[in-house]
Amino acid sequence: MTEKRSLRVALIGQGFMGRAHSNAYNQVGHFFDLPYRLERTVICGRDTARLDKMAATWGWAETANDWRAVIDRKDIDVVDVAVPNHMHAPIVIAAAEAGKIVLCEKPLANSVEEAERMVAAASKVRTMVWHNYRRAPAVQFAHQLIQEGKLGQIFHYRGQYLQEWGNDPTRPPNWKTDKAQAGSGVVGDILSHSLDTALMLNGPIASLNAMTHTFAPGREIDDAASVTVRFANGSIGTFESSRYAVGCLNRNAFEIHGSKGMLHFDLEDMNRLDFHDATEARNLQGTRSIIVTGPDHPYWKNFWKPGHIIGYEHTFIAALADFVTSLAVGSDFHPDFEDGLAVQKLIAAIQSSAASGTWVTL
Amino acid sequence: MTEKRSLRVALIGQGFMGRAHSNAYNQVGHFFDLPYRLERTVICGRDTARLDKMAATWGWAETANDWRAVIDRKDIDVVDVAVPNHMHAPIVIAAAEAGKIVLCEKPLANSVEEAERMVAAASKVRTMVWHNYRRAPAVQFAHQLIQEGKLGQIFHYRGQYLQEWGNDPTRPPNWKTDKAQAGSGVVGDILSHSLDTALMLNGPIASLNAMTHTFAPGREIDDAASVTVRFANGSIGTFESSRYAVGCLNRNAFEIHGSKGMLHFDLEDMNRLDFHDATEARNLQGTRSIIVTGPDHPYWKNFWKPGHIIGYEHTFIAALADFVTSLAVGSDFHPDFEDGLAVQKLIAAIQSSAASGTWVTL
Amino acid sequence: MTEKRSLRVALIGQGFMGRAHSNAYNQVGHFFDLPYRLERTVICGRDTARLDKMAATWGWAETANDWRAVIDRKDIDVVDVAVPNHMHAPIVIAAAEAGKIVLCEKPLANSVEEAERMVAAASKVRTMVWHNYRRAPAVQFAHQLIQEGKLGQIFHYRGQYLQEWGNDPTRPPNWKTDKAQAGSGVVGDILSHSLDTALMLNGPIASLNAMTHTFAPGREIDDAASVTVRFANGSIGTFESSRYAVGCLNRNAFEIHGSKGMLHFDLEDMNRLDFHDATEARNLQGTRSIIVTGPDHPYWKNFWKPGHIIGYEHTFIAALADFVTSLAVGSDFHPDFEDGLAVQKLIAAIQSSAASGTWVTL
Amino acid sequence: MTEKRSLRVALIGQGFMGRAHSNAYNQVGHFFDLPYRLERTVICGRDTARLDKMAATWGWAETANDWRAVIDRKDIDVVDVAVPNHMHAPIVIAAAEAGKIVLCEKPLANSVEEAERMVAAASKVRTMVWHNYRRAPAVQFAHQLIQEGKLGQIFHYRGQYLQEWGNDPTRPPNWKTDKAQAGSGVVGDILSHSLDTALMLNGPIASLNAMTHTFAPGREIDDAASVTVRFANGSIGTFESSRYAVGCLNRNAFEIHGSKGMLHFDLEDMNRLDFHDATEARNLQGTRSIIVTGPDHPYWKNFWKPGHIIGYEHTFIAALADFVTSLAVGSDFHPDFEDGLAVQKLIAAIQSSAASGTWVTL
Repeated sequence: MTEKRSLRVALIGQGFMGRAHSNAYNQVGHFFDLPYRLERTVICGRDTARLDKMAATWGWAETANDWRAVIDRKDIDVVDVAVPNHMHAPIVIAAAEAGKIVLCEKPLANSVEEAERMVAAASKVRTMVWHNYRRAPAVQFAHQLIQEGKLGQIFHYRGQYLQEWGNDPTRPPNWKTDKAQAGSGVVGDILSHSLDTALMLNGPIASLNAMTHTFAPGREIDDAASVTVRFANGSIGTFESSRYAVGCLNRNAFEIHGSKGMLHFDLEDMNRLDFHDATEARNLQGTRSIIVTGPDHPYWKNFWKPGHIIGYEHTFIAALADFVTSLAVGSDFHPDFEDGLAVQKLIAAIQSSAASGTWVTL
Repeated sequence: MTEKRSLRVALIGQGFMGRAHSNAYNQVGHFFDLPYRLERTVICGRDTARLDKMAATWGWAETANDWRAVIDRKDIDVVDVAVPNHMHAPIVIAAAEAGKIVLCEKPLANSVEEAERMVAAASKVRTMVWHNYRRAPAVQFAHQLIQEGKLGQIFHYRGQYLQEWGNDPTRPPNWKTDKAQAGSGVVGDILSHSLDTALMLNGPIASLNAMTHTFAPGREIDDAASVTVRFANGSIGTFESSRYAVGCLNRNAFEIHGSKGMLHFDLEDMNRLDFHDATEARNLQGTRSIIVTGPDHPYWKNFWKPGHIIGYEHTFIAALADFVTSLAVGSDFHPDFEDGLAVQKLIAAIQSSAASGTWVTL
Repeated sequence: MTEKRSLRVALIGQGFMGRAHSNAYNQVGHFFDLPYRLERTVICGRDTARLDKMAATWGWAETANDWRAVIDRKDIDVVDVAVPNHMHAPIVIAAAEAGKIVLCEKPLANSVEEAERMVAAASKVRTMVWHNYRRAPAVQFAHQLIQEGKLGQIFHYRGQYLQEWGNDPTRPPNWKTDKAQAGSGVVGDILSHSLDTALMLNGPIASLNAMTHTFAPGREIDDAASVTVRFANGSIGTFESSRYAVGCLNRNAFEIHGSKGMLHFDLEDMNRLDFHDATEARNLQGTRSIIVTGPDHPYWKNFWKPGHIIGYEHTFIAALADFVTSLAVGSDFHPDFEDGLAVQKLIAAIQSSAASGTWVTL
Repeated sequence: MTEKRSLRVALIGQGFMGRAHSNAYNQVGHFFDLPYRLERTVICGRDTARLDKMAATWGWAETANDWRAVIDRKDIDVVDVAVPNHMHAPIVIAAAEAGKIVLCEKPLANSVEEAERMVAAASKVRTMVWHNYRRAPAVQFAHQLIQEGKLGQIFHYRGQYLQEWGNDPTRPPNWKTDKAQAGSGVVGDILSHSLDTALMLNGPIASLNAMTHTFAPGREIDDAASVTVRFANGSIGTFESSRYAVGCLNRNAFEIHGSKGMLHFDLEDMNRLDFHDATEARNLQGTRSIIVTGPDHPYWKNFWKPGHIIGYEHTFIAALADFVTSLAVGSDFHPDFEDGLAVQKLIAAIQSSAASGTWVTL
């Protein structure tokens, strides 16, 4: 084999997302025949002891503590930002201005203003936002079925992202519960995933009306949100998100009703997509559960065999593979920073509507 | 056995609901040891040919075409109103003023003003609204579990009533799609059931924000509704209803998250109640599906055996049994007309909020 | 309407089955437009006090204690036998010899010899065995799909009838745990239903190998059975039945794999039939859950509306309706006593194979 | 960090299992803090072109074509055998005699005689059989619950391993359909997994009675098997396996009924374990679906977060981690070759019983 060109990656961040990204860099070449070789050049963080262990475990060649110095390095092609939300903008803007390929965790920013500056700074570089759940095979397959017209005219879109960890009073606060660092609570943290998926599957949202709520005493950050929307395509929708949805570990779900059928997905059963085909004979209509590990499902030749399921981490691997492939062929990749900005505008509209109690037009 | 006192029933209505009520009158004494004997004295409707057949089939002793004459009869103790919505008020008010026990199909009326007049007229008689789904064993059992504190503090209430028949373009319009007769579309027709159930399970709604939508070209009646609410107990909720929810024959569902657990119900699987007990050891927590046909579930001794399921019609039978029993012992019965009025106020608030785009306080 | 000819029914039996049959006689004319009017003429049993109450509740015109005297009556057209198994043969034979139409609870008899005498005695009268579960809409629909070739060549048939009540040590013994009265345990009591369904759906069984087991100390009756079979059509199958299957209230289930698809049914969700269509595009294959209350399912016009479910009792009503209809049109009805004998031969073969540990050819 | 001692691994095999094992060697150190460093020293196979690519992709330092030469190398500590079944014995025996740590794919051998020679040869070395599904968190958790007595006295064990690929007539024959290479069909290929799991969860099998069947024209290898068993602990069981179970991609399932509860697992939903607790209040009993990604489930701290699911490959990673850990601490590891031999004896008993039609005592 001829040697592939290398892309030298700097990962900024050493938390849970740093681990998920590290795994993706490690695994992507095992499952996808990529046009580039991804080199784990440097991992950057502030906790040196943990950083050394992380570098040793995941094969990062070097460690660093100063992200500005990392960005200044000429031998870095890619900067991947996986730090708390309030740090996204400065790092991303610096990296983009240094001409790096930039990947950023979601939500893109803590405000529309920040996000717009990030998009502007990155106008000449390739970008990606880590809305990894787009790359669950079931979600890609849902997209394909909708594009093929299998649902007909869409009537209803229902998005949910429900978790329960807010209900645990023994759990200490962290940056995700601090408005200054996180920007918002469930809205940016998890509802942003639902919004990104909805934009891909059902197109732009024209207007919305939202309620947010804080259950935790003494906090100012949203623990829950309910949003009613009108999509540009004439369908209507609802979104719901909570950290107090006891019984839900990680229910990232959607349900879509169209004139020709229904789709339902729940990340807790991410290897399945439910499909109801309303064009069949009436007595044969029912909701079927499709195991989307193949044959003929997205990514099915990359991972294992039909019926041999994949997990959480594979959404990161597939996202990275698609992005890297798009770099070589020069094709569009989504979600890029423009897509992240679109989600950011929805987050802002939700916050605004929740404050005013009125509809907000996008 | 000593002879029981009779209650002589006049059923006004000969449609699908007339059939469901007829069955209930026929069956209630087979499954419940009632304090009264219910006599099917007269069935009243305008289509004489069909009425004769219906009387013969279901054992109504007489037929009649004029509901006013029926109400004037001294030998009628109970008037049961199962006609299109716009006719509820005049018949119910006349029956109540004649001192009859009055049962009325849902929604109680076509406006709050009508409903208030009905409540006033019926202030001295016993009343019932046919929100029969309250009497699904699973729904009563959910109520019992909540009353016992099994869910702790309620955080979220999610109600859905989704059907798909609106999507069938071959289906002719009927009184349910005519605003003059029906008052509203999905909101009164099916969402009213969800609202009634929510009021029983989670108490009063303090404020709400609603969107309604009409998909059918040329119609003015709501085909779909989305409602965000704040309950008086501090929990928040959403309601959704549609006739264009393809894939849903009759999904009358609720999901409730509290600090100690979750409940989920779907009428399409009405013999089951899903319960998640968050007070158990963490590694044993999961959502369990309870078959609510006994032992020790509501009505389990009345119908068949554990594991021998019941159906749609049994909710009417149980509602009627509970109501008739309450007549003898003089106990409260719910939902009575006051409860029906409460639902009516929510329907009006939903219509008002949908028109204004703002929150409405109840 | 012209008056229909009456069929005057004598019900022999006053237990749980007596109640289920009484309900069927009461209800069948409400849901089906029958060629005959079924008169509840007399109910016969030995516990006079309970019998009076039962007659009053369910509308039997008379009571009787002596089944022989009942059979001798000229004003009885139909004798329905719902007593413990060991009493089936004498009553059925006497009724058949008296020229009555005869219905009998399952299993038909306590031995093949008894069953053969019953068939012989009934050679000139119309007969029915109460394998009511054949008439669950889902089971009839499965039969229809198989007849249409929707499963292709059948490979596997898997029947289960699992209950848990044997595990309750506080439960007193009854006639079902007494070999003299019941003939067998789970094999005759519940596995007979599975066998009857299998014969209808997949045709004759050519040979079998069985194990039976008694868990209850001091009993001689089978608490559990496992059977491996070869069907005449070349498919292979398994049957399993138990009263110690903790977690199963009433799991009467089957699963069938053919070259073109799979069917699955479980009585605990009797309004659903699962279907997997293996002729579809590979990426759309999945097991769908069909709610079989219509449109276009068996009996859907008789009961309520699509999505409005039915229950246990409706299987008896539909069985009775089909039988009574067949009387008028002179068509075959199954399961008749010949079908009951076929099941009886399987029961005997299971007992024989379990005793010998070898294969038995039917 | 101090440098860990290395274990230098030779992988013999380059097929699908070679890929799954390669991934495990790559990933195990990322998720588990192992006592040894596993070096991917050499991968051995006969297709040189594919072998080079595989080595490059998965990080094997060298390739080789001659397994005997590999085993002779002094710088190899571990030999992992992932080749067709008929080659297990010669390679394993040579490796064991050379003092290597030996891992072998399942089934251990093609006959009891072979397996016994392998056990004898390996009497002084550490061994493992790749029954990876034992290491699904749900299966380990089931084991834990049974050990804790959560099921009470076991009554029934039901094992299934059902696939559908045999039904595809376009699929070419391969070594798995050739008796000389595979030894058996479904029995060794997939039922062996079910048997291994059963032995772990429910202990030894005392006797069995089996049927095997070949659907494919012109083949002599078993496409399907049904087995009835008596376990040494007094419970009874059934096993079923097929390649013609249309609708089942990879249904590796078990269900266990005990006096205190039920467990159910299906590999197609491998992140879930269903548990029915029969010690609870009767009205709260139901089968719960536990998502076994934590908290407090096996391996939950190794992989991701609660609700973030894992997949097929993680069973290999966990098996390897447990084995390598046992090497360092000197503890027992199961399944070792003795366990593999126990499964082999069951395979032979199944084949013998299927041939004779009689019970076989183990």
